[in-house]
Amino acid sequence: MTEISHENWKFLNGIDSPEDVKELSVSQLNDLADEIRRFILNSVAQTGGHLASNLGVVELTLALHHVFDFKKDKLLWDVGHQCYTHKIITGRKDKFKLLRKVDGISGFPNPAESEYDQFTVGHAGTAIATAIGMAIGQTQQKKNSKIVALVGDASIVNGVSFEALNNLGLVKRQLLIVLNDNSMAIDPTQGAVAKYFSKIRLSQTYEDLRKTTHNILEHLPVIGKSVDEAVERIKKGIRMVLPASQMFESLNIPYFGPVDGHDIGPLIKLFKALADIEHPAILHVYTKKGKGFHPAGSQPSRFHSTGPFKINNHKNGECVEVETAPKTGRPTYTNVFGKHLAELAEKDDKIISITSAMCNGTGLVEFRKRFEDRFYDVGIAESAAVDIAAGLARTGLKPVVCIYSTFLQRSFDQIFQEVALQNLPVVFCVDRAGVVGSDGPTHHGLMDIGYLRMMPNMVLTAPADEVETKLALEFALSQDKPVVIRYPKDVVPAKKSAPARRACARPFKLGKSVVVKKTKDSVIAIVSYGSVLTEALEAAELLAEDGIAADVINARFAAPIDEKIVQLAHKGKAIITVEDHTAACGFGSAVLELAAASFDKSTMKPIVVLGAPRSFIKHDTRPVQLMQAGINADKIAQTAREMLES
Amino acid sequence: MTEISHENWKFLNGIDSPEDVKELSVSQLNDLADEIRRFILNSVAQTGGHLASNLGVVELTLALHHVFDFKKDKLLWDVGHQCYTHKIITGRKDKFKLLRKVDGISGFPNPAESEYDQFTVGHAGTAIATAIGMAIGQTQQKKNSKIVALVGDASIVNGVSFEALNNLGLVKRQLLIVLNDNSMAIDPTQGAVAKYFSKIRLSQTYEDLRKTTHNILEHLPVIGKSVDEAVERIKKGIRMVLPASQMFESLNIPYFGPVDGHDIGPLIKLFKALADIEHPAILHVYTKKGKGFHPAGSQPSRFHSTGPFKINNHKNGECVEVETAPKTGRPTYTNVFGKHLAELAEKDDKIISITSAMCNGTGLVEFRKRFEDRFYDVGIAESAAVDIAAGLARTGLKPVVCIYSTFLQRSFDQIFQEVALQNLPVVFCVDRAGVVGSDGPTHHGLMDIGYLRMMPNMVLTAPADEVETKLALEFALSQDKPVVIRYPKDVVPAKKSAPARRACARPFKLGKSVVVKKTKDSVIAIVSYGSVLTEALEAAELLAEDGIAADVINARFAAPIDEKIVQLAHKGKAIITVEDHTAACGFGSAVLELAAASFDKSTMKPIVVLGAPRSFIKHDTRPVQLMQAGINADKIAQTAREMLES
Repeated sequence: MTEISHENWKFLNGIDSPEDVKELSVSQLNDLADEIRRFILNSVAQTGGHLASNLGVVELTLALHHVFDFKKDKLLWDVGHQCYTHKIITGRKDKFKLLRKVDGISGFPNPAESEYDQFTVGHAGTAIATAIGMAIGQTQQKKNSKIVALVGDASIVNGVSFEALNNLGLVKRQLLIVLNDNSMAIDPTQGAVAKYFSKIRLSQTYEDLRKTTHNILEHLPVIGKSVDEAVERIKKGIRMVLPASQMFESLNIPYFGPVDGHDIGPLIKLFKALADIEHPAILHVYTKKGKGFHPAGSQPSRFHSTGPFKINNHKNGECVEVETAPKTGRPTYTNVFGKHLAELAEKDDKIISITSAMCNGTGLVEFRKRFEDRFYDVGIAESAAVDIAAGLARTGLKPVVCIYSTFLQRSFDQIFQEVALQNLPVVFCVDRAGVVGSDGPTHHGLMDIGYLRMMPNMVLTAPADEVETKLALEFALSQDKPVVIRYPKDVVPAKKSAPARRACARPFKLGKSVVVKKTKDSVIAIVSYGSVLTEALEAAELLAEDGIAADVINARFAAPIDEKIVQLAHKGKAIITVEDHTAACGFGSAVLELAAASFDKSTMKPIVVLGAPRSFIKHDTRPVQLMQAGINADKIAQTAREMLES
Repeated sequence: MTEISHENWKFLNGIDSPEDVKELSVSQLNDLADEIRRFILNSVAQTGGHLASNLGVVELTLALHHVFDFKKDKLLWDVGHQCYTHKIITGRKDKFKLLRKVDGISGFPNPAESEYDQFTVGHAGTAIATAIGMAIGQTQQKKNSKIVALVGDASIVNGVSFEALNNLGLVKRQLLIVLNDNSMAIDPTQGAVAKYFSKIRLSQTYEDLRKTTHNILEHLPVIGKSVDEAVERIKKGIRMVLPASQMFESLNIPYFGPVDGHDIGPLIKLFKALADIEHPAILHVYTKKGKGFHPAGSQPSRFHSTGPFKINNHKNGECVEVETAPKTGRPTYTNVFGKHLAELAEKDDKIISITSAMCNGTGLVEFRKRFEDRFYDVGIAESAAVDIAAGLARTGLKPVVCIYSTFLQRSFDQIFQEVALQNLPVVFCVDRAGVVGSDGPTHHGLMDIGYLRMMPNMVLTAPADEVETKLALEFALSQDKPVVIRYPKDVVPAKKSAPARRACARPFKLGKSVVVKKTKDSVIAIVSYGSVLTEALEAAELLAEDGIAADVINARFAAPIDEKIVQLAHKGKAIITVEDHTAACGFGSAVLELAAASFDKSTMKPIVVLGAPRSFIKHDTRPVQLMQAGINADKIAQTAREMLES
């Protein structure tokens, strides 16, 4: 396994900006593509990162940069995890050693890093709508930068993408949508559009793709023609030979393709021709996810986003076998949840699970295997996922919706109207709650407590360890109202002291906290919500070393809040609340609200809320991010000391 | 003008449940339709309510109830404001005197009112997804109720609808989607799908519609056939004669239509045939919004949702002229905003306005008239609206997004990622913030402060009167970051005292409150956010009568919060915060968070937060709802007295 080295490359060393790409011939670009592919593979093997999708768009990205001038023109990435080639050739290749690490570059586009990036993204379906805005902005200001949105087949079925496609007619100038069809999202793409694409794909030979390219080029360019003329010409001239034109034609969007996304020469010609159409258009491109790296083909979910790994074996120039770094012995919260849900489903056939393109990420692989007809993956469609769950609950079933905290933001209104307002017993398993490490600000789940606790009927709970994860799930499934369970992207904590273990093993009761550590003559209580109980317990140890007696309470519920927590403040104990969430609107804020309602100057002790600040926390490791956010043991102990001194 | 009377009806008096509808002949149903239409018109003229859409679906609703048994079968309304005929024939006609009034029925479907309603709805695009959930639930539990989703052409283009259509393949049994195409939402429907429907509609004669019906019936029923056979038969047999099949066919959804939605006889035959297809299907139906009521045709926005009015004139059986009750002399916040935005846009050509099917409701009619090329209505697509605005801001323009608070919930994730994370200067004019009166729980805007103040970079402000509405808008447009302005569905307040007027006329400064009433030796400060300043001032008067001196502060900002507010609590003043929002996560909660950070037992006075409870507030008038939520002058004064006594 070679280190990322700058001496081995024939072309890559000379690429410091897209200008250098423009000077290369097609044959040289192909060689550069091979080098970039190796560079990405070696780099991600060392740092971890998104792999399969990046290996798929190397040629496509090079062809785009060869034709367009993205210093002036605008390239919008959808989701954005596939932007590594773009980053490599826009002056950031030396920073790949620190990919997704502190002081290094982010794994997503980021305008703060480069003028070649337009939006910091990470959620799906936004590129077309933002591109429409930028295109209209260009027209309004009589500017003429070209605009390109690069959208995957999994993203284009998202509701936001569709709303944008339906509004593409607002744009009366050039706007090219490149539909990157790799027939695979993180999990296999679901739904009618995916089937439609797949049917077309199966009917196409490589020769057909070349013919299509030829057909398109023959009917283009349309430079100098009016918009209407151009569109009419496209429609009449070539639609008959383009098998997927039907879907887009009914939306009045000129469609071209499918063509081969790895064939740089024709791609360049196509982009040159399409750049001159004074009207929005779609180019449908086939690429192969994980191209050049065999294991990504056989384990697509495994190599969507990966930790570091070791390449063991090469075969015909492709890496065919890898070895993953050994993991800690402890399971993740996700593992524990997934396994236990499958166990519970064995006994209760009313349990149905629903996810939005995150079967693997949310730990549902075992459930899907065992209960295929009770598992639903709706693709990147968080809004519909929640509404489908509401419908299921309305018929008496027990739907369990598994979505990451940050993506569940897409379902805010559905949770409000179709679940909370109806008081339907939908269980929300909110994975990746809290800071998430290397994915950074687009992926932190720091707002779910706030956006969910405002809604009537919603019960909010969070487990603090492995046992509680199971108990919380059992509790949630026993309720006749909506329940939210949040847990982080983390392994469950190591074993606690016997009393703490016993406390956390008690069954969940609605709105009831448990005392995890009771200290004689304590003057302060640390009240934690969810997995940060570990930090609270560690803080109590630190304080004990200083001779400060602290109790530790595991709140378990953020809605309803246990009134006992506030009573502690009346009983002479200062309180520190701790949560892996913004301090604004979170668990501690709910404690403050309850305390304000029973304020009594004669008895009330101070309550300090520890939570993330109202600012964006950069990609880094989770422990470092928790430290930065001030949600760790040291900060808790320090706060306690300050409170007692004052 | 006749009162709603039960003696004048030939059929309506005998209709106490859908059973009674089933017994009528087609000719009798037509007569009943006429009576219902008159009933709705007379009723809404007296109570106010949604009119045009309800007059359009009378025959369609009767035909559905004639064929299906919605005691067992499930009818899902999209948006739901068009459910009056359904309510009339499901035992609720006597309650129309109290439509949308306290103790009366809601203007939307509501399972608490009737077993014939499935979901309390009010937002668009949810019926297909919830229907999918209910259909899967039926299959899982081996039940066989038929499921019908009734969706308007304006709703079907919403992203949630599309996500559901894309997932319709999850359903392997009957599910009928009735696409009610009245070619008109509240504002004219935007986008490619609308154009597609409209092109088809223009090409169709009445004779064509009859032929289509005939064609469909000839190829159906398919009872007893397997799902695949049925679908194949549909596709091959009749798709050639159905002009709009193309769009849905690419989504693999069997499509039938368009047919005449006012012709009860054929509708009944169609529903009978379609009820037996063991596969999801769409029936496309043309209806005429406002049928039988001429003014709705000429003023569609005016009669979408209306207050009481007087019918002045009949002509050929149709009401042709109405007289609206005179309004208060004061303009609404919406009027003030709309007028001032147009004035500012005159001087600054960077201002662009964007709305989602609410041009009229958000006060943008004048702007649209004067700056047609700087106004964008994206249809019911709140998510895309925000992303388009983000794109516009990225090019240097000043987009102003005008959406109701409750509907902006659909854009939560877009505001987070595409606006707040990028720190783009998008201005959000959040109309209908707070309780909204007769529309009830689906439409209250009680969560916007909470869901927006968690996001970094966002500035949250709220004007308290006419002058402040203008000042807030000018302030927002001058910032280089995102700013949210919230205001209620209400008229601006009457003139205040001279000092209060002067305080509110001071220019807005980021995060700075203004003292509106300073009282000598005051012991309490009432701090209000936004339009409830009126209540705060009135409370101060009430307290003065009791000899209690209270200051009144107009907070102006919920993010960032003015630290001076908290300093008051340290300077010996008890504080009451007031806002037209849930107490959870709102403005007062932000004050508590700030106060907790500077807690000092020796100086701190109590802070009590007044806001709406965490429960759903029923339809009623806005003043009554404010009273119920405990956000009015009496409650403030009472709270102050209690605080000072304790």
